[in-house]
Amino acid sequence: MNEELDAIFEEIKTLLADRNYAQLYSRIRILKPADLALLFEDIPMEDVILTFRLLPKDTAADTFVELEPDRQMHLITAFSDAELKAVLDELYLDDTVDIIEEMPANVVRRIIRYSSPEMRQSINTILNYPADSAGSIMTIEFVDLRADMTVDEAFEHIRTTGWDKETIYTCYVTNSDRRLEGVVTVQQMLLCDRSKTIGEIMDCNVISCKTGDDKVEVAQTLKKYNFLALPVVDNENRLVGIVTIDDAIDVLTDEATEDMEIMAAITPIEKTYLRTGIFETWKQRFPWLLLLMLSSTFTQKIISSAEDALSACVVLTAFIPMLMGTGGNAGGQVSVTVIRGLSLDEIGFSDWLRVLWKEVRVSLLCGSTLAAANFAKLMLFDRVTLEVAAVVSITLLVVVTIAKVVGCLLPIAAKRIRLDPAVMASPFITTIVDALALLTYFRIATVFLGL
Amino acid sequence: MNEELDAIFEEIKTLLADRNYAQLYSRIRILKPADLALLFEDIPMEDVILTFRLLPKDTAADTFVELEPDRQMHLITAFSDAELKAVLDELYLDDTVDIIEEMPANVVRRIIRYSSPEMRQSINTILNYPADSAGSIMTIEFVDLRADMTVDEAFEHIRTTGWDKETIYTCYVTNSDRRLEGVVTVQQMLLCDRSKTIGEIMDCNVISCKTGDDKVEVAQTLKKYNFLALPVVDNENRLVGIVTIDDAIDVLTDEATEDMEIMAAITPIEKTYLRTGIFETWKQRFPWLLLLMLSSTFTQKIISSAEDALSACVVLTAFIPMLMGTGGNAGGQVSVTVIRGLSLDEIGFSDWLRVLWKEVRVSLLCGSTLAAANFAKLMLFDRVTLEVAAVVSITLLVVVTIAKVVGCLLPIAAKRIRLDPAVMASPFITTIVDALALLTYFRIATVFLGL
Repeated sequence: MNEELDAIFEEIKTLLADRNYAQLYSRIRILKPADLALLFEDIPMEDVILTFRLLPKDTAADTFVELEPDRQMHLITAFSDAELKAVLDELYLDDTVDIIEEMPANVVRRIIRYSSPEMRQSINTILNYPADSAGSIMTIEFVDLRADMTVDEAFEHIRTTGWDKETIYTCYVTNSDRRLEGVVTVQQMLLCDRSKTIGEIMDCNVISCKTGDDKVEVAQTLKKYNFLALPVVDNENRLVGIVTIDDAIDVLTDEATEDMEIMAAITPIEKTYLRTGIFETWKQRFPWLLLLMLSSTFTQKIISSAEDALSACVVLTAFIPMLMGTGGNAGGQVSVTVIRGLSLDEIGFSDWLRVLWKEVRVSLLCGSTLAAANFAKLMLFDRVTLEVAAVVSITLLVVVTIAKVVGCLLPIAAKRIRLDPAVMASPFITTIVDALALLTYFRIATVFLGL
Repeated sequence: MNEELDAIFEEIKTLLADRNYAQLYSRIRILKPADLALLFEDIPMEDVILTFRLLPKDTAADTFVELEPDRQMHLITAFSDAELKAVLDELYLDDTVDIIEEMPANVVRRIIRYSSPEMRQSINTILNYPADSAGSIMTIEFVDLRADMTVDEAFEHIRTTGWDKETIYTCYVTNSDRRLEGVVTVQQMLLCDRSKTIGEIMDCNVISCKTGDDKVEVAQTLKKYNFLALPVVDNENRLVGIVTIDDAIDVLTDEATEDMEIMAAITPIEKTYLRTGIFETWKQRFPWLLLLMLSSTFTQKIISSAEDALSACVVLTAFIPMLMGTGGNAGGQVSVTVIRGLSLDEIGFSDWLRVLWKEVRVSLLCGSTLAAANFAKLMLFDRVTLEVAAVVSITLLVVVTIAKVVGCLLPIAAKRIRLDPAVMASPFITTIVDALALLTYFRIATVFLGL
């Protein structure tokens, strides 16, 4: 499918170069907004503006939403006042707010100036919700119905007002105070007797969220119940907006990316990799590398203090990387598993003892099998003495066990004190396990080898 | 919201203990299937069976789908033939197939026996699609329309056949050969003039996928275009099923989890952490730990061969963990970023030179700032000689650069040769970078310190 798209893009570029606008017009009409946005990333800005003006009004608006902020900014600057107003009229509130959040002040002023007064007020309201809250990602374009409407009247209502709603498939039933009373789907309405009232067919056990709820939890609620939209209410249970499934998917994907970045000791930012400048990338990475580098002072001190033992038995030095590496990997395995489990709500704080008990058993199993394999390798291939092989293998067992225990407890503890558990992934676990591994190693070596 | 749910669960458990079935009946009716499934994980099997029988038919089927396989198996075993048939009649094909894939042979035989003949045939067809293909996650319960129907006739068609469709909101237009001609949404149909024909309002530029397409790509297509469903066609462009948004979300979430597991050197399995036995967990982790442990033989050999240099300048040993750790962290940062970018299609193979050029600059920036910080620390706090501080800091700069380059190129190379890029994450990068770091360290030390 991607090759097909690439072929169409190439054709369009040729048509643009040839100024063959009639053909161009017919080609771009077969593209969806998401594809047009990809095309627009790929051609010069003057061609973007030209092509954009050939699009039907609603496709133009949908494409505009999909563009990267810099292209959006250039387009807004190129728009006449009438063009800007036309695009803004077609946008949903949540998209308008997303765009405003990325634009410089002068562009924002221009957007606000050409929005309708009600839109302007709604934009301000949403901008005031905390980032990461349900309020900040909701839209206000939903269908609301009354319980005493018949299904036929409800359809008539949808028909007259549904044009500018982000979804019409889930409709919300409110009373005269705007309080949420029930929810009804178009599927239910289509399949039932049309003379019934909405009150008769609606579901009164409405799952809703509050404007201040965390957007990731809201997205997970949509996923859990297989909803297409979730109503957002204020503290008086008045319906103020909805979060739709497309936004929920984006939230879940971004959250997974963010977790991966934090686990790899990177400060997450919203931009994609190729659009991030090298100084920004440096800022995302350097502080963590510095912190981790400084914290390896511990291992440095431990090795320095064991200098005598190491020079008495030089071969011991050679196994330090293997012991630290295996410890780090063993700890990383469990921490990533537990962090993902916590973030998908499969593991809760109350499970900590169950997790610990499981990890103790798994680590004894992993540790003893690894130690056995290592012992065999040391004796058969590396041909070290029995004592050295024993010291290294016993240390391995202990290190794996320590690593698994540290790796499972730290993320759960972090969650408990409302830190992001993802911070407690491989890099930090490794630093801690490194130090513990060396202490164990030198202690066991001292005892067994009498150093 | 979770506390609310916990309170209801506690109340239901009390009602079950008191055998107060009238009250129980009214309480469970307010729960959604996803919540009932949570409750059923939490109460004894005999109470599950009892409660399940109190549920309305459609809620019962939806709840059954949400249950974990062991509970499903117990329920099927407890069902009378009539009960089993009633549940099976309510299930969508894709859910039935999911259940069959988890059940032991005798339970599968019972399910097949009580499915309708057409269902049986469809189950067989879907079971024959490769795992991870679009065919394996699609459902066959979709609405198909003809281009010459009027909108009114189409609504009538939906009204009579829509009861057992997984989604009615996106309808597919096929010709007499079952070939896909267009797509039309209920929103379009509701908002247009009812005397129009479907052919007039349908979108003929249909985005579809093939039965053999990778399910992750299919899910990403749904996300890209904000679709609620995507049609699946065979090689003759005949419509054979649809993939719905709820399944796409599950695929994307599972894929992110799988990537995280592979990046942490764990073999992914589908079960959640707490449901995986300790031997299974061992099997997921042990082979990787063993492989990585054995591959640290390289670092071991490198250190052994540098024994003389190390005993001539013992202080060098103390900085080995810091150098290897920083290299591993620096490589891990970039590999995770690139792996995620590849899997979200933000980075492609053709970008490799751009990525490399960016990483070279970022690594010089990160490396030189880290080296400067490290040099200051070594001189001021650790009070090593100027030569040792220089050796360690220069090595640090080189190691960070090597790590970043290796960390960005390996995942892209893996993708190119159709390996999963996620394998090239921290653990493997670390092993390679460890060896390169040591080689660099000893080489630089030999030159500068004349060892």
